[in-house]
Amino acid sequence: MGMTMTQKILAHHANLDSVRPGQLIMANLDLVLGNDITAPVAINEFSKFGQDKVFDKEKVALVPDHFAPNKDIKAAEQCKCLRSFAGEQGITNYFDVGQMGIEHALLPEKGLVGAGDLVIGADSHTCTYGALGAFSTGVGSTDMACGMAIGKAWFKVPTAIKFNLSGRFSPYICGKDLILHIIGMIGVDGALYQSMEFVGEGVANMSMDDRFTVANMAIEAGAKNGIFPVDATTLAYLEAHCKRKPVIYEADSDAEYDRVIDIDLSTIKSTVSFPHLPSNTRTIDNVGEVKIDQVVIGSCTNGHLSDLQMAASILKGKKIAPWVRCIILPATQKIWKEAMHDGLFDIFIDSGCAVSTPTCGPCLGGHMGILADGERAVSTTNRNFVGRMGHVKSEVYLASPAVAAASAIEGYIADPKKVQEGR
Amino acid sequence: MGMTMTQKILAHHANLDSVRPGQLIMANLDLVLGNDITAPVAINEFSKFGQDKVFDKEKVALVPDHFAPNKDIKAAEQCKCLRSFAGEQGITNYFDVGQMGIEHALLPEKGLVGAGDLVIGADSHTCTYGALGAFSTGVGSTDMACGMAIGKAWFKVPTAIKFNLSGRFSPYICGKDLILHIIGMIGVDGALYQSMEFVGEGVANMSMDDRFTVANMAIEAGAKNGIFPVDATTLAYLEAHCKRKPVIYEADSDAEYDRVIDIDLSTIKSTVSFPHLPSNTRTIDNVGEVKIDQVVIGSCTNGHLSDLQMAASILKGKKIAPWVRCIILPATQKIWKEAMHDGLFDIFIDSGCAVSTPTCGPCLGGHMGILADGERAVSTTNRNFVGRMGHVKSEVYLASPAVAAASAIEGYIADPKKVQEGR
Repeated sequence: MGMTMTQKILAHHANLDSVRPGQLIMANLDLVLGNDITAPVAINEFSKFGQDKVFDKEKVALVPDHFAPNKDIKAAEQCKCLRSFAGEQGITNYFDVGQMGIEHALLPEKGLVGAGDLVIGADSHTCTYGALGAFSTGVGSTDMACGMAIGKAWFKVPTAIKFNLSGRFSPYICGKDLILHIIGMIGVDGALYQSMEFVGEGVANMSMDDRFTVANMAIEAGAKNGIFPVDATTLAYLEAHCKRKPVIYEADSDAEYDRVIDIDLSTIKSTVSFPHLPSNTRTIDNVGEVKIDQVVIGSCTNGHLSDLQMAASILKGKKIAPWVRCIILPATQKIWKEAMHDGLFDIFIDSGCAVSTPTCGPCLGGHMGILADGERAVSTTNRNFVGRMGHVKSEVYLASPAVAAASAIEGYIADPKKVQEGR
Repeated sequence: MGMTMTQKILAHHANLDSVRPGQLIMANLDLVLGNDITAPVAINEFSKFGQDKVFDKEKVALVPDHFAPNKDIKAAEQCKCLRSFAGEQGITNYFDVGQMGIEHALLPEKGLVGAGDLVIGADSHTCTYGALGAFSTGVGSTDMACGMAIGKAWFKVPTAIKFNLSGRFSPYICGKDLILHIIGMIGVDGALYQSMEFVGEGVANMSMDDRFTVANMAIEAGAKNGIFPVDATTLAYLEAHCKRKPVIYEADSDAEYDRVIDIDLSTIKSTVSFPHLPSNTRTIDNVGEVKIDQVVIGSCTNGHLSDLQMAASILKGKKIAPWVRCIILPATQKIWKEAMHDGLFDIFIDSGCAVSTPTCGPCLGGHMGILADGERAVSTTNRNFVGRMGHVKSEVYLASPAVAAASAIEGYIADPKKVQEGR
């Protein structure tokens, strides 16, 4: 029986010729990631192993990004724990405030993830790196601790759903709309412990940023991972960022899939996830009249340069609604600077937005834009569970940067095409 | 008996020909200020008065700046309270996230304070506006509530200390060094319920930003207010920012002062307030070896454009110490944009600093850079009380932007002149 992309990466990292779905394997890790919320727990567990050093000080990445810059004393203590551990261990890939960014945007940018890698991270959106043809998945802090100690982790080999993409996005439509559409179609457990493998001629029409966004939210369909094949776009990105030679795994022609879903990208509309599940989607023409209080543009899902460019193209020359706070969170310091030089910050500031230093911040109700009782936000982030961005009676509507920007202007959830045509 | 500048402003606003020290007067207010911490309490008190509307919807300013952008649900509820009240009352000077800045930098910039004004604010650093030849002072939330209701407040007429300034600052020395020097000399209660009146030929050699910094910290010597005479520098600032005609009050030649202190500005050295009082000062040549973890450059005290320019002139082409987080907080959106266009953000980001949206944030242990147990910060803010920036066992060292930037580079408290000469 042939293997999927994911199965091939797992087999290779387990030193096996082949693996079958459901098989338990122990695989070698290329990178183990933790952040300021999850790593302190892992560091505490690691300290119980009686082992002096991590398995490889260049293969552990620690990124304080969730409640950093420190939102309170507890956050300060958590970040201090990471910093101390990184110092003691000589961990090379520790990124403090000022050198940092949101982990899932930062690691690819720093070249720490290459095609064919196997990455675990104590953060559910670690699946982002599948955009680069890597297998990456979120784990708990104890798995992170073991990974730091022995450089290995166990996996149950997943089955897969094949998403056969064709066509090309219409203007103002992007990867976020695609993944929200998919989650709306299959549900938040629609890909439970499965790989979401995105293939087909349509992939070539998707930017790296779009692919990162799609892979990032695979977990929101319950997937073990999301993964894209390596093509010219991937290779160009890796050439610019990663020193290591890409290792390319293609699915066998006879690989088995639990399900095959065909999607023509040209049919995807702007899509919004209503409270309180990512699967509770509506296309933009069916959102009705939803007045909002806040817009957040950023996060590991949509804090890329192209996301900010899309938002700026809609905000340019306009003012946001006076009752809306619009908070822009570029995902990394590099993106921050590029956005500034691109003139995007002028557009944002002139339209009435606040631009913050990179942080996960409001996405998980951390800081930098928390919602009060009854408030509603349109957000380019990845989850809209009850109380995700603040008060249990607040609401989060997930959307693309284009929808978010258009909604900031109107003060209601809005269609970016209509806002642009009304110019 | 002649009157001081402060006494003249108070007399005029009480419709009296003259006042004497200790006299209780009821005076008319030109502006009543509140922020996201103090205004909700005042709004609650105001609601008990049975009065529909504030005395003048153009003379109340509400600025959510302390825990904004909302650091948590409680902060979100506080800001919502301000926003709702501003909406109900039609308050014109409400400045939300994206339109805002730190209140004491924002109000002068928006032209809301003019020479000769009488301003109260439910924030202790309201005394900042004395730089413009206004009488301004911090009050409690109940006084703010009464002020919003009747446009008046009672005052006990203060005596004064005259600071007779001569000379000119040396390079890398600024208003912050002067006011820390003064507080070190007279103590945190050295001007208790007195006016600090800054006069003399040296005033002309001080920029507006320097004067704002000095007046801002008058409260740290226990003063009722700090005030500068109106000169060409003040008039140029007011011409650029405030539509109203300045009303100039000069002290009478026979005004009485409790004390006269002569200071030659050329003798002022870089000065640092050690934990845990602003009066615990040492000149830079006497600081010894103090390793630091964080640097904060910003706040109502030192978040002006010239402060950021001074810091950038030292950081340019250099990297901050790898163990230091350096957080830059421009005081307003306008300053933020000007600093960006000045190329300062390039310098900050390249040297390893994080640049945040305007907020009081870490100054009062709010968010955006809180200290852990045992951590030390050099900060351009105004208070270094126990636990001010986080953990009760953390330490804050108050300094100028020049000292802060030099310290960020060295990782120890450092003399900006030496850092620059070592270039």
